[in-house]
Order: sequence, then C-alpha cells, then structure tokens
Amino acid sequence: MKSLASDNYAGAIPEVIEAIQTENRQHAPAYGNDATTKRLEEQFKALFQRPLEMHLTFNGTGANLMGLSCMVHPYSAVLCAETAHIYVDESTAPETLLGCRLIPLNINKAGKLTPTVIEHAIKRQGDLHHPQIHVLSITQPTEYGTVYTLDELKAIKAITQKHKLFLHIDGSRIFTAATSLGCNLKALIDASEADVLSLGGTKAGMLYGEAVLIFNETIHNSPFFHKRSMQLASKNRFIAAQFLALLHHDTWKKYSSTTIKRAKQLAACLSEYPIISITKPVEANAVFAILPQRWIKPLQAILPFYVWDESNDEVRFMCSFDTTEAEINLFDKKLAELSKASIESNL
Amino acid sequence: MKSLASDNYAGAIPEVIEAIQTENRQHAPAYGNDATTKRLEEQFKALFQRPLEMHLTFNGTGANLMGLSCMVHPYSAVLCAETAHIYVDESTAPETLLGCRLIPLNINKAGKLTPTVIEHAIKRQGDLHHPQIHVLSITQPTEYGTVYTLDELKAIKAITQKHKLFLHIDGSRIFTAATSLGCNLKALIDASEADVLSLGGTKAGMLYGEAVLIFNETIHNSPFFHKRSMQLASKNRFIAAQFLALLHHDTWKKYSSTTIKRAKQLAACLSEYPIISITKPVEANAVFAILPQRWIKPLQAILPFYVWDESNDEVRFMCSFDTTEAEINLFDKKLAELSKASIESNL
Amino acid sequence: MKSLASDNYAGAIPEVIEAIQTENRQHAPAYGNDATTKRLEEQFKALFQRPLEMHLTFNGTGANLMGLSCMVHPYSAVLCAETAHIYVDESTAPETLLGCRLIPLNINKAGKLTPTVIEHAIKRQGDLHHPQIHVLSITQPTEYGTVYTLDELKAIKAITQKHKLFLHIDGSRIFTAATSLGCNLKALIDASEADVLSLGGTKAGMLYGEAVLIFNETIHNSPFFHKRSMQLASKNRFIAAQFLALLHHDTWKKYSSTTIKRAKQLAACLSEYPIISITKPVEANAVFAILPQRWIKPLQAILPFYVWDESNDEVRFMCSFDTTEAEINLFDKKLAELSKASIESNL
Amino acid sequence: MKSLASDNYAGAIPEVIEAIQTENRQHAPAYGNDATTKRLEEQFKALFQRPLEMHLTFNGTGANLMGLSCMVHPYSAVLCAETAHIYVDESTAPETLLGCRLIPLNINKAGKLTPTVIEHAIKRQGDLHHPQIHVLSITQPTEYGTVYTLDELKAIKAITQKHKLFLHIDGSRIFTAATSLGCNLKALIDASEADVLSLGGTKAGMLYGEAVLIFNETIHNSPFFHKRSMQLASKNRFIAAQFLALLHHDTWKKYSSTTIKRAKQLAACLSEYPIISITKPVEANAVFAILPQRWIKPLQAILPFYVWDESNDEVRFMCSFDTTEAEINLFDKKLAELSKASIESNL
Repeated sequence: MKSLASDNYAGAIPEVIEAIQTENRQHAPAYGNDATTKRLEEQFKALFQRPLEMHLTFNGTGANLMGLSCMVHPYSAVLCAETAHIYVDESTAPETLLGCRLIPLNINKAGKLTPTVIEHAIKRQGDLHHPQIHVLSITQPTEYGTVYTLDELKAIKAITQKHKLFLHIDGSRIFTAATSLGCNLKALIDASEADVLSLGGTKAGMLYGEAVLIFNETIHNSPFFHKRSMQLASKNRFIAAQFLALLHHDTWKKYSSTTIKRAKQLAACLSEYPIISITKPVEANAVFAILPQRWIKPLQAILPFYVWDESNDEVRFMCSFDTTEAEINLFDKKLAELSKASIESNL
Repeated sequence: MKSLASDNYAGAIPEVIEAIQTENRQHAPAYGNDATTKRLEEQFKALFQRPLEMHLTFNGTGANLMGLSCMVHPYSAVLCAETAHIYVDESTAPETLLGCRLIPLNINKAGKLTPTVIEHAIKRQGDLHHPQIHVLSITQPTEYGTVYTLDELKAIKAITQKHKLFLHIDGSRIFTAATSLGCNLKALIDASEADVLSLGGTKAGMLYGEAVLIFNETIHNSPFFHKRSMQLASKNRFIAAQFLALLHHDTWKKYSSTTIKRAKQLAACLSEYPIISITKPVEANAVFAILPQRWIKPLQAILPFYVWDESNDEVRFMCSFDTTEAEINLFDKKLAELSKASIESNL
Repeated sequence: MKSLASDNYAGAIPEVIEAIQTENRQHAPAYGNDATTKRLEEQFKALFQRPLEMHLTFNGTGANLMGLSCMVHPYSAVLCAETAHIYVDESTAPETLLGCRLIPLNINKAGKLTPTVIEHAIKRQGDLHHPQIHVLSITQPTEYGTVYTLDELKAIKAITQKHKLFLHIDGSRIFTAATSLGCNLKALIDASEADVLSLGGTKAGMLYGEAVLIFNETIHNSPFFHKRSMQLASKNRFIAAQFLALLHHDTWKKYSSTTIKRAKQLAACLSEYPIISITKPVEANAVFAILPQRWIKPLQAILPFYVWDESNDEVRFMCSFDTTEAEINLFDKKLAELSKASIESNL
Repeated sequence: MKSLASDNYAGAIPEVIEAIQTENRQHAPAYGNDATTKRLEEQFKALFQRPLEMHLTFNGTGANLMGLSCMVHPYSAVLCAETAHIYVDESTAPETLLGCRLIPLNINKAGKLTPTVIEHAIKRQGDLHHPQIHVLSITQPTEYGTVYTLDELKAIKAITQKHKLFLHIDGSRIFTAATSLGCNLKALIDASEADVLSLGGTKAGMLYGEAVLIFNETIHNSPFFHKRSMQLASKNRFIAAQFLALLHHDTWKKYSSTTIKRAKQLAACLSEYPIISITKPVEANAVFAILPQRWIKPLQAILPFYVWDESNDEVRFMCSFDTTEAEINLFDKKLAELSKASIESNL
C-alpha cells in the first residue's frame, strides 16, 4: 500500500537499484578507498566548483552529527530551530556524539529561522560560564516543507559571518529545495557559504546513504571524525554508486520535480474546499492542512498520512518520488465524496 | 579484480540483491515498524528457540556498540581481547557511545581469551575508585580466524556467571564460526548463554546491515539505545530483507562453507612449501602465514592481500563467499613458480 | 571592599574556620571514610527524619550534576527553567557529565516554573526518536531570589508523581529559602518529595563544599557516580566539618536571617524612590530593581553590584551573611544624594 | 591516630590554615577574578621563568583531567602507565571528561615508563580506524614512590618531540620529587618541556586544591575547559592563598624534606631485618616492603598502613608532612619486638 505518511516509506528509484547491481560485479577496497567513491567526490567538486571533502554516511542522523562534530569544541553550543530534526527526532544522539549543547530557537510561521531570532540568541560569547555559540544549523527545506530563498540564505550568511559562526545545512531533502527554487545545489552553497552540508540520499530515492560535504578548508581531520561517528561503511562504494545514479543526467531533478508536482496537485485539490485550510506554504513535497476531523480516517484509508497536531486536526501529507497523479486523483475523489456527504448532512 | 585482502572487498550475494528488489516493490512504514522486520525477528526467535529482542544496525561498529551500550553504566568497564575490533579498529567510538572504559586482555597464541586471563582481570569490584567490570566481549571467530569451541564457550560462560558479568559476542563472521563447528547459531548461544550477540550480515554477503540480538530479558529500553546510537535506518526493512535472504534455506551455510573450503584449500597449498609457516590454526576463512619476503609482491599481483606483521613478514589471506577454486589454483601456480625460482637461485 | 555583586564574594563564617582548625588536629581516613563525614550523614538523617544517602562535593556545579547523573539514562532529558544555573552558568558540563539533554522551560514573572508549563513540556514519552523526560530540576530559591511556597512545591510534586519524573532541587541557597518560609529543611522535602537535593554550603558561609542528599531509595550505586564526577575530595572530612558547623545550633539560621533582613532593608530603602522600581518579589537575599542609569556607577562605587539586564537598566543586589546594616545605610545615604541631585537638576 | 596509610590522611600545614584566615578578612570577586589568584599566577611565572596559564582545581582528578582535556581531540588516545592514577583510580572520569581513550603501558621495576616502551606504543598514527596517540602522561614521582631523574625526563622529552606528542605530568606530589632530586620545579619543566603540569597542593599540605599549569602556548581556550570540568571554585582565591603559603619562603621544601627524611628513616629501620625486603627504591615519601605476614597486624596497630599486594604480603608505607621521628621510632621498637619473638619461636 502506498502512503503519504512519510517520504521514507517509499523504497528506492530504479536507477539506484541498477547502480547497485552494476557496482556488485566486482571487488573493491573497503572503507571508501575505492574508485567509485573517488569518482563521486570528483563529481561533487565539479558540481559545486569549489574544493570540498566528502564523507558518506548511512543515515541523516549520522550525516548531521558527523558533520557538526567537525565544527564544535567540547564547550560549544549549536543554534538550531526548535523543530529541527537534530533537536527533536534524534534522541540524545547529538549530545552523545557532540558532547555539547544544542540551543533551540523559535521559528516563524513558515518554519524558518530569521536573522533577528538568530542574532538575538548569540550572547555571552567569551563568557566561560556559558556554552559558546559556534555553529548555526538550518534545515533546507524546513521541517514545514518550506524553502529558504537564496536571499534568505544570504541574509543568514551575513549573520554567521558577522559573528564568526560555522553554518551547517541539514539537507536531507535538499535536492527538492533546489528544484523548488529552480536552481542547482551550487547556488544554495554560493548563497549561504555553508561550511558543511548534509546532503540527503535516502529521501531522494536511495536505499540508504547520505553525504557530508565539507566546504570550509579550515576544518581538519574530518576522516577521524567520520570513523569515530560509527558511520563509515565497509562497503562504502555502494553508497557512492547510489549517489552517482542520482547525479547522472540530473536524475534527482526528475524525481524531485515529480514529488513537488504531486504536492502542488494535492494542495490544489485541498484548496477547493473552503472547510480545509492549508497551513504552511507548499514549496517542497509536504502539504500541511487542517481538515474536518471526521474526514481524517476515511482519507487515511485511501492513502495513510499523519496527524501533525491533534489539538487542531492539522495533518501532514508527504509526497514521494513515486506518488502518482492517479493516487492524488483517488484522494481528490474521496474529498469530493466527503464534502458532498458533509453538505447533505448539514441540510 | 578479486582479492584476498578482506572479506568486505566482496559485494553482495545474488540472493541479497534479489531480496532488495522484491522488497522494493512496495511502500512500508519506516524505522522498523514494517512487516519484513517483524518477520525477521520471528525467524530469529524460532531459530534460537528463546525470547529475544532484535535491532538492526548499519555496520559492525554500530552493532557492537549499540549492543554494549544496553549493558553498561557510566562507571563500567568492558573486558575484551587486546586485538578486539572494538578495541583497535573503531577509533574512539566505544568511549564516545559507551562513555566508559574498555580494558584490553592478553590473548593466547590462537587469538583467544582464556578463563584464567579473564578471571585475573576481574578485580577491585565494589571499589568506587576503579571502573567496575560489568561486561566481557569476545569475538567469534576471533581476529585470528580461530573459533571458540562449544566447550570453550561453556568455560567462558562459567566465568561470566560466577562473576555476574554480561557476555557480548562480536559475531561479525559468526555464520562462519557455526559452519566451522558444524553446528547452528543456537548451539553457540546455548553454550555461551550470551546476553547480546552482534550478528554480522555485511561479511556474510549483505550490502550492509547487522543485527543486535538481545537474549537477556533484564535488559530494558533497548529501542531507546538503538535510536540514540544513530544506527536506526529509516528504510530498515531493506536490512531485514537481506537477512531473510541469508536465513532462507540456510543460504548462509552455503556461502560460509565455500569460504572455509577456500581457506583450507589455500592453507593446503601453502603447507606444501616448507619455507612457509602457517602461524594460526585455520578454522574459518582466514589464513595467516609467514612468507619469504620476496614472494609477497608477486603473489599480491595475483590476488591482493595484506601484510599483517611487517617485522616477520606474516601475511593475512581472507577468503570471501566468492573466492573460487580457480583463483586459489592460480595462486598455487604462482607459489610453485616462486619456489622453483628460489631453489634455482640457490643452486 | 565589601560587595553586593554576589554572595560568593564573601568568605567564610567564623564558625566554619574554627571547625576546620578543630578537624585539622588529627589524621583520618581519606575519601569520606572518616568519623566526621559519618557524623554529618547521621545529622542529616535526623534532620530530615528519613533514610538518605549523602555525598559531599566541592561546588554547586558538581553537586547538581553528580545528583542528576544518578537519575538519568543516556537517552533522558531533564526539564529545568530557562534561567536555571545548570542551563546557563555551567558551560557544557551538564551535557558532558550527564550525556543527555537539558530542556529549558519558560518561567513566570516570579522566576518560577508553574505546573502548567511543566506539564506542557512532558511529551513524546515512549517515542524512541525523542529524548525521554525523566527528571525535573527546580531551583529553590529561584535565580530571581523568589521562593517556592510549600503549596507550590506540593503542586510540583503532584506533577512529577503523576508523570513518574524524578525531582531534583538545586538548593545552593536552600537554607535561605527555609528561613524565608519560616520552616526547616525537612518541610521543603516533605512538601516536594524531592528525590535528590543539592544542598549548598558555599553560599551559606563555607569556604567550599556542597552536599548531595539522595532521598529516593531506588537510586542505586550513587557512590560510583560520585567518584566518576571528579567531586570526591580526598580530605572529604573538611567539607563535613564545615557543614557540621552550619548545622550546630542552627548557625545557618542566624546567618540566613541576617542576609534576608539586609535584602529587605535594601528593598525598603529603594522603594522610597518612585523613580526606582523593584522588579521581583524580595523573598530571599536578592533584590532586583530598575535604576536611573546615571545612578548606577555612583552606587557601585559604594558597594559593587551587577547590571542584570542592560536593555532596561535592571540591576541585581545580592546580600551576603556579612552584609551590615551600616553598609545598607551608606547605600541609602547615596540614594538620597542622587535623588536630591536629580530633583535639583530637573528644576 | 596518625597513620602511614596515605599522605591524604593528614590535614593541612599551619601555614595554610593561617593563609585561609588572612584571606578570609575581605570580600573579593569570585571565580578567580581576584587579586590573590593573580598574585599566584605571577609567582608561578616567576618561578618557572616562562609564560604559562594557571587554572586552579579542587582535586587531583580534576587537575589531571582538566589539563588533559585541553590537549585531546575526540579521536585521541593518551598513553599512560598501567599503574597511573588516571588509569586505575579515577573511575571512568577520564573517559567521561575526555571522551577518548587511555592506553595503559607496562612499567619497569621502578614503576617508570621507558622510552622504548613509549615508542613501541606509538603506532597506527594517521590510520583513521585507530585512536590517534596525541598525549603522553607520566607521574612524577611515580605511583611506586620513585622519581624520574632529569636525564630520564630529557629522554622522554626526546620521544614526545620526535612523535609530536603533548606531555602531561601528573605532579600530585611533585614538590617531593623536586626535593628528592635537589632541584626546583623549574628544572623539572626545563628537562621535560612538559606542556601541562598538574601541580598538587592537597598532598603537599593544603586542605584541598591543585594547580593546572599550561606551558604550551598553542593550547588555546583553556578557561572554557576549566569551567566545563566542574572544577572552577567560586571562592577560588582560597585555593590560591593556600598555594601562596606553600610557595612563601619555600615552605613546600621544608615539609617535603621532612616527609622524605621520614621515609628514609623508616627504610633504614626495615633494612635492619633480613626477613624484610624493600621492593622499590625509596626516593620520595613511600616505602614498599615485603613483611612476614604475622607482623603486619601488630605493626598496623602502631601506625596503620595498607597491604599493597596480598599475594606476596607487600605493604606500602606513606609518610606525611607531619610524620614524626618519634613515630618511626615507635614503629622500629615494635619491629625489634616482633623480630625477637620470631627468633625465639624458631629456637
């Protein structure tokens, strides 16, 4: 059964499966000392047109925390959104691996951090009694499915550079952000001057695997942090092969376009019904909406999804690379039915 | 190019690739809340005929440390072999995730821990100034490719039970151990009464993935330790599917038999030459031997392998599930050539 | 020069110095295995009329974190006020020693946590992706110098018991709280059913030293946590001797009464001037007030104090056990001068 | 009752008590921002004739670990003697605060690390799978009461400089080492070029308190490490005042001379009896000896001491600054009695 519950309910795109099969034809050195891994690193360098170090990890938690671990001291603090995955969905893994503090910041209605909020949080720098703020982590797209514009990224860069903070981007769905903005990944890094990017593969259609890209050349010894994070695969080349499949002929663009198209289609359907309110801008593959409570169960029977906020019946729909137009149409049909029944019962 | 360098230079067995393709046909809940994962846990319960909790991880470091983390206090120590992978090949990940001490113990010539050595190390229990020894971790087969017999496991069990220690088995190649002993996995746990087993999938022919099996019912809250270890896959079911392929019709036995057969074949070849000495008992898929130094490079050109100890030209050959009889024969042929050249040059 | 900057600018009360001299007459076993330490533990048992375990530490950071460390798992979270000393004034020591999360909660105008705020923060219990909330830590008196009433403590107890949380009290100035409420320490524990109390000695007039009192009998192995926290003194008995001096004939009451009296005297002086507003209830030894900016420097020249909030010229005065009536009178005289000058300059 | 059990069974020297009383006459800023602390730092700079940073801590565990924490990365290892206090007597505090590995090295008969042993342990540098050896920690005097000579320190320096390791000295009794070698503290640092010294106050006759001296100017941000280590005293100046008393007119020399003299006197008494063997060189304030088992209890009744190794009745006597000639004479008298009784019973 297909689902709108989360984009990690889907499996892998066919190109990824094929790449694994091809890679499987030969032996190769372990732990990333293989040609496939090297090829991927070269492709990323070409793509971003700047020097970088690449480390592949298994999952997003690993990518985020391994990347952050290269930038913190034991007495540091990392600023992040109160809704950030690293803050609310990774148990105490951040404290365990980083050994230091995460400081949650309030987000605006679009789920974003604003320069004002960030700057207000930068305090007691130099005061040894207080954790020292060394890193800002943002999520692109945000947990609300919204996308920082290039100008917003530039404004954030201004703050981090002014206060000499490192900038980390949790990009578990960053391909979707690039597609949404109609730019490539390079433009996102050029605008933000991010020091470290966690580039997500799993949600983009890989079986598993993420990349940590380190752009800041003053970050040393990252291979040691990689191994220590327990995220170095012995058969590392199979992660590299999957990424190469995503990059080949911009395969990522094909799938992220589809997923955004489906989210917009769904939003368009929902917006037909005045009783439904869409609560966040639909910019990536998520749609948040408040539904009549009695509609939720029947709609979940068509395609499962989560209630995001029980207090107001806000739900979250996540489209995947394999969500089809037909599925959204089925959903739409059910909406029409429910609406009709609703109107009739009110007569 | 094939290799005898390490069993993780190989890819995956065809049954595993097929299982991934099959699993990829559908959506399913993330983070292990899917039917495939549940089916695997049931199969392990049936296989071991005892209650257990199963958690899947990405790699061996993750499996070992997640498993150990369920058994330690912040003031604990874990005894292990001085050669243990957790001690010498996982950077400081153990200290990071466990927060406590690993204590290295001397091994015997076969690479094993003996009851005498273990018992001698259990000291200052109850003394608050010293780390408290709570866990013994053994590796089966050992880093020397030797296999603890069922009687040796029973003797270790006697020590751990006498001193109320938890027993952890690092079983990254445990299928090979079972095949070597001609028993099933159940017999290994029945003999050792291990509390936690790290059951290796990667070296058994999976792309990635290990299982942590928790047999001790007094170990609580392991799901929280799993998530915190950064080793919980969103698309967890693809690890489960690979394991199911290994278990199906004892596929693991087929491949581990082959790999042991190749190691024995290689050892037989090497033992033809009095100038070569085989340095450890050949019981699993590793062969350790001291070679004439000038033979090493030419032999590595046939099939790469590592020099284990440069001080005495001891090398390590690791056979994989896909090492072929023909490859060993090629190797043998080169040995004959080198020997002949050697004799001639001495005339 | 005396000061109102902080109560740890003062030295030690004479009874404490005398107790150290007396203790110094003999040798005694190290690390708390001495008669003086045992005598103190017995006195605390008699005072609280309940079983307890006592561990002495060097400072408040040590007491708070050692106490908390006995109650958390690696995947836990501790709720505390956003202003809590453990959250804002102990660097990343909490994350380092506990290995888990602190979650900051909003305080009310009196600097207190309310049952509503606490209960709202208890969420996602049982969800392995989120830190599990296991402990609530409150500060008595609060960082605003206000004191939770016995009824407020009972209301907090109701919440912690309902949600099965441990309760920790940071009582670095708890003697002052008891004096303020006109009760003894026992009443505070009877009302709150705190599981662990950090009982402050340093700010009560000791040279150094705090006590961690563990009331919850399900907390095991605390001596190991004590040693691990680096807070076990070899000459532990000198901390015990100082506490015995504080307890003897309720010496603590004498000094904490004085310090509160001085704070009230100061507040009374300040409240004479309509241009000054006292911003928090004066219940312990702190007075917070908004002063005319140009008065701050001249007043600091009489007795130093800190500006608490530069944005609105709010300052904090802390009275110590040795703040004298005469000193406050001097301060008052300066206030009068400044006020007079102010009025004249406005004419 | 006096004791030879440990030098931390003693209290404080009178000069220290007096210094505390003097310091107690005034208020002063907290957390080391006071004139007394500054004066001490200046005195240390003058004494060592080199730049340094000073941080005061409460106890030796704190000094050692705070000092080490400034020199390690999360993926580091610290080499130390298998008998080092940081390895065997500080629970898991090292792993907790440092987050990385301690590697125990074999000592020679004199309890010392030799260049050969150290150099042999420096391996797999640059290999990301293995902890990276960044620091060597030695104890001066050693746990056996022996003292590294200046030449031995120079030889160790050669190794650490060759391999680019930091050198840490655990100097909890370093005043005694200097007195034993007839040099000053400066000579020890000039010979070893130690990067960080933990300079012990407690065993030298203070109530509590140690100093971490950082000589390596490439070590940055140590104040943040200090606070994070939970070892920053609010009334820090009382530690400084005690150290000033030790340094004033070389007070430390007077007491450490006495304690060494007493140890030598005791050793001389013991060596009169052929049935007793002194097992380690007597160079500081410790005497190790194998006694007839039936003599142990009667001698402990005169002055308590510990059995060091039950397997061979080796005992350890520790002299303190206040061990008197008369006490050793009493001990000697008992030895004579026991010897006489022994001879008679053999007739």
